[in-house]
Amino acid sequence: MTTDPPAVTVGVDFGTLSGRALVVAVEDGRELGSAVHEYRHAVVERALPGGRALPADWALQIPQDWRDVLRHAVSEALAAAGVQPRQVVGIATAFTACTVLPTTRDGTPLSEQPAFADRPHAYPKLWRHHAAQPEADLIVRRAEESGQRWLARYGGRISSEWQYAKALQLLHEDPEVYEAADRWIEAADWIVWQLTGEENRNLCTAGYKGIHQDGAYPDEEFLASVHPGFSKFTAKLDHPLSPLGAPAGRLSAAAAALTGLPEGTTVAVGNVDAHVTSAAAQALDPGHLLAIMGTSTCHILNSDVLAEVPGMCGVVRDGVVPGLWGYEAGQSGVGDIFAWAVRTAAPQEYADEAGRRGISLHQLLTEKAAAQPVGAHGLLALDWHSGNRSVLVDHHLSGLIVGLTLDTRPEDVYRALVEATAFGTRTIVETFEQAGVPVTEFTAAGGLLKNAFLMQTYSDVLNRPVNLLVSEQGPALGAAIHAAVAAGAHPDIRAASAAMGRLERRAYTPDPARAAAYERLYAEYRTLHDHFGRGGNDVMHRLRALRDQA
Amino acid sequence: MTTDPPAVTVGVDFGTLSGRALVVAVEDGRELGSAVHEYRHAVVERALPGGRALPADWALQIPQDWRDVLRHAVSEALAAAGVQPRQVVGIATAFTACTVLPTTRDGTPLSEQPAFADRPHAYPKLWRHHAAQPEADLIVRRAEESGQRWLARYGGRISSEWQYAKALQLLHEDPEVYEAADRWIEAADWIVWQLTGEENRNLCTAGYKGIHQDGAYPDEEFLASVHPGFSKFTAKLDHPLSPLGAPAGRLSAAAAALTGLPEGTTVAVGNVDAHVTSAAAQALDPGHLLAIMGTSTCHILNSDVLAEVPGMCGVVRDGVVPGLWGYEAGQSGVGDIFAWAVRTAAPQEYADEAGRRGISLHQLLTEKAAAQPVGAHGLLALDWHSGNRSVLVDHHLSGLIVGLTLDTRPEDVYRALVEATAFGTRTIVETFEQAGVPVTEFTAAGGLLKNAFLMQTYSDVLNRPVNLLVSEQGPALGAAIHAAVAAGAHPDIRAASAAMGRLERRAYTPDPARAAAYERLYAEYRTLHDHFGRGGNDVMHRLRALRDQA
Repeated sequence: MTTDPPAVTVGVDFGTLSGRALVVAVEDGRELGSAVHEYRHAVVERALPGGRALPADWALQIPQDWRDVLRHAVSEALAAAGVQPRQVVGIATAFTACTVLPTTRDGTPLSEQPAFADRPHAYPKLWRHHAAQPEADLIVRRAEESGQRWLARYGGRISSEWQYAKALQLLHEDPEVYEAADRWIEAADWIVWQLTGEENRNLCTAGYKGIHQDGAYPDEEFLASVHPGFSKFTAKLDHPLSPLGAPAGRLSAAAAALTGLPEGTTVAVGNVDAHVTSAAAQALDPGHLLAIMGTSTCHILNSDVLAEVPGMCGVVRDGVVPGLWGYEAGQSGVGDIFAWAVRTAAPQEYADEAGRRGISLHQLLTEKAAAQPVGAHGLLALDWHSGNRSVLVDHHLSGLIVGLTLDTRPEDVYRALVEATAFGTRTIVETFEQAGVPVTEFTAAGGLLKNAFLMQTYSDVLNRPVNLLVSEQGPALGAAIHAAVAAGAHPDIRAASAAMGRLERRAYTPDPARAAAYERLYAEYRTLHDHFGRGGNDVMHRLRALRDQA
Repeated sequence: MTTDPPAVTVGVDFGTLSGRALVVAVEDGRELGSAVHEYRHAVVERALPGGRALPADWALQIPQDWRDVLRHAVSEALAAAGVQPRQVVGIATAFTACTVLPTTRDGTPLSEQPAFADRPHAYPKLWRHHAAQPEADLIVRRAEESGQRWLARYGGRISSEWQYAKALQLLHEDPEVYEAADRWIEAADWIVWQLTGEENRNLCTAGYKGIHQDGAYPDEEFLASVHPGFSKFTAKLDHPLSPLGAPAGRLSAAAAALTGLPEGTTVAVGNVDAHVTSAAAQALDPGHLLAIMGTSTCHILNSDVLAEVPGMCGVVRDGVVPGLWGYEAGQSGVGDIFAWAVRTAAPQEYADEAGRRGISLHQLLTEKAAAQPVGAHGLLALDWHSGNRSVLVDHHLSGLIVGLTLDTRPEDVYRALVEATAFGTRTIVETFEQAGVPVTEFTAAGGLLKNAFLMQTYSDVLNRPVNLLVSEQGPALGAAIHAAVAAGAHPDIRAASAAMGRLERRAYTPDPARAAAYERLYAEYRTLHDHFGRGGNDVMHRLRALRDQA
């Protein structure tokens, strides 16, 4: 028996610019091989492929780019792993969310109907499509007016990124496409439909992005109060919801031809990239907070407590793992703020030095910043360059830096920005705890893990140990774990996670002296946070309004 | 008569890094020729010429460097002008202030006594020597305690840059040198002593830097309250004060040999570079504010009104022109803030573009910034990178910028900093007016004039026309005008200024639409200004304290 080739699963992670397939051993989670496929159209922001220009704040994608990941990356990953297709016992996907599209009844994207190919609203709206803010505001206003109980499950705010705001924008701006859309479906579920040939909807995106709470979507009366034509909207969503880790179906003949996997292979229900990473990080127990840190940071926390936490993104029963309340929070800007600093505030001599030494500007700035004692730069920043997702839920806030002098150097600003994002994380952790949701463990995942200075700073600022998910492919690994559960290779997500996940506990622990110094800076951060974020001075909103007029 | 070679005067401007001599026609102020001589030792900040290290915040100069300007620049300027020495009817000087030194009774700098050559306190302290802050604080505290009436003439603060703070530091740290100093004298007066061979003291520096008010220096009782050994300090200053524009004496044989000018040439009393520029700019009438804009900005305003203006630097009767109250205010950082932005926040591609086009980074950033509508960058800054001289008088404040997004570009920051300094100027103008000192005209002088975008921004922000002093050598021209008065070529400073000054009225006028938009941004600036500058949030002080500890 032990000479049998080992059983594997395939996790496919659909990111913002590319998709990645990862082949994983079911027994112990070893990552055997992977392949990446870049989306040909990346993010469609300026014009449709046919040439039609898009307004500001739009972000679309092309469904064929996603299919191409299945076509190329899966077989390439198998080849890289030296694995035969027959070893594959299951496949699962992870997707950005809320990325959502209108389709016909059989799942054909409206953008692939010739009649609609030049209609922007016929295309999938990527998670970071930000043109539906008025619709989000209207939904929140009506929900407040009629006292919708689900509103508190989302920290009192419905994001412009989510299904309802994006759909309402569609109805407002292109009612014909709205009418033609039999289905309004998360890409996370649409991709599973491509694999199995049958519609399936998962509980996670329905809860976090689709306002599905306590077994129901918002009712017709509420929807009609938002717009008379919107009252039947949930008919476009309606479908039984599958629990996470369950099988959605079996690989269709067409999908088998596409992927090179055997027809009939088990396909797990769809899932969100951030949420599924919890399984990869073994961060499923109540109180274990996972921070997936990249251009932005997403926080996932399971708890046996249901509480109304101010400014969280959402809480969903069974939303991450069956039997617990899954909380989501986030920071809009993290790595992209550091990238902004590198792009705009690294002078030529720094570029020259980095070039000479063969390191990146990020590495150079990190090295120079890391050498400083806490507080030596005299700076304090607010990390709101792309708004604040939690706990203020205000995308019209902006970044601030104070303490500048003629001696302030680029590495000082860089360090202050790193610290600001750590203060932002601490604010989220404390908000959970103050609302009665304990946070007992902190694990980091994502692209920023490789910056040891940054990780140590988080540990010092949080004054907690920081664990690491020691895989660079968290969502794909998480999906592969879910695939193993769906295929029956492990009894449930927790067991599969214990066997296949990768957690390094206490990779960083706080330095007491630095932690003490950061207590003082964090207090200053909170004062500025509340002053500029809670109405003490609304200058950020007014500056944005002036900018938009100008 | 008209074929006689024209009468000229020589103005010599002693700056921070070099001295400049300018030859000017007495009749109409034509600038006939000039020459610059760089100080060999520039600013002595790290170590004495003999090698002894200096503490932080020190800034000294070497008297011989000043003599060398007389030796080289005067004759070179005459040669450049094609002027014979016998055409020179007078010479006058302008100096940085408060630049002050200890000398023997005959004017020999103590630093030139071999016994004291390795004693830092024996050297002239440059205006920007900033190590006497504790002494300045002590003087203010004692003055407040005993209700010294002169304190209000300085906006309630005595600067660490001035004669008393610097002398008290000397007494505290090197009492032997303090004892040996028969005279404690402004470089502005010391240089005149070198020319005439006799001590002379001017009313301007005595008033603005020496706390000479209503005919007297602070009394012994007050000085003793500061330090018992300080009670007789004013004996080191005591000397009749000469009015501005008066002759101080005649050129000594030694000075004639040094400069190449005829012995007996009239020498005007000493003067300060900023204040004497008012004559060059024809900015002598009540209500005419002159802003000398360079690395920092100095504001000079004459008025027939005596008022206590919060946060001004000083008001002195006859301090700029006989018969009026001369007010001084200032902004600690202006051009040096823009230089900081160029140094730290212009990425390589900008340096490349500037290099390709053969323009400076300042020009490139200005060009990119100038193209924007008001408010389009969404930013607002506080221009306190080197503290705030007026109206907050707090050198421990720091710079702030708010409104940052991932789209913020270097030119956006640059423009916001330009605007912030303009808002700072407007704050000063309004503070004068609110205190009952009218400002009816605004004239700019100094090195920043060549930036037309900056000048237009000032006009738009102030919502006033901006006149220009159309000479690049304002202090030297002003000195030459004073020399003409001292020589009797014109009856008084006003008449000489009218004949020899260079004012272009209304060089910039406000654009109504931009001015209206700036009203809104200025209101936001004032809100931040008062919040961070007047104790709403003392975070800037706390960050500085943390920095100093770290």
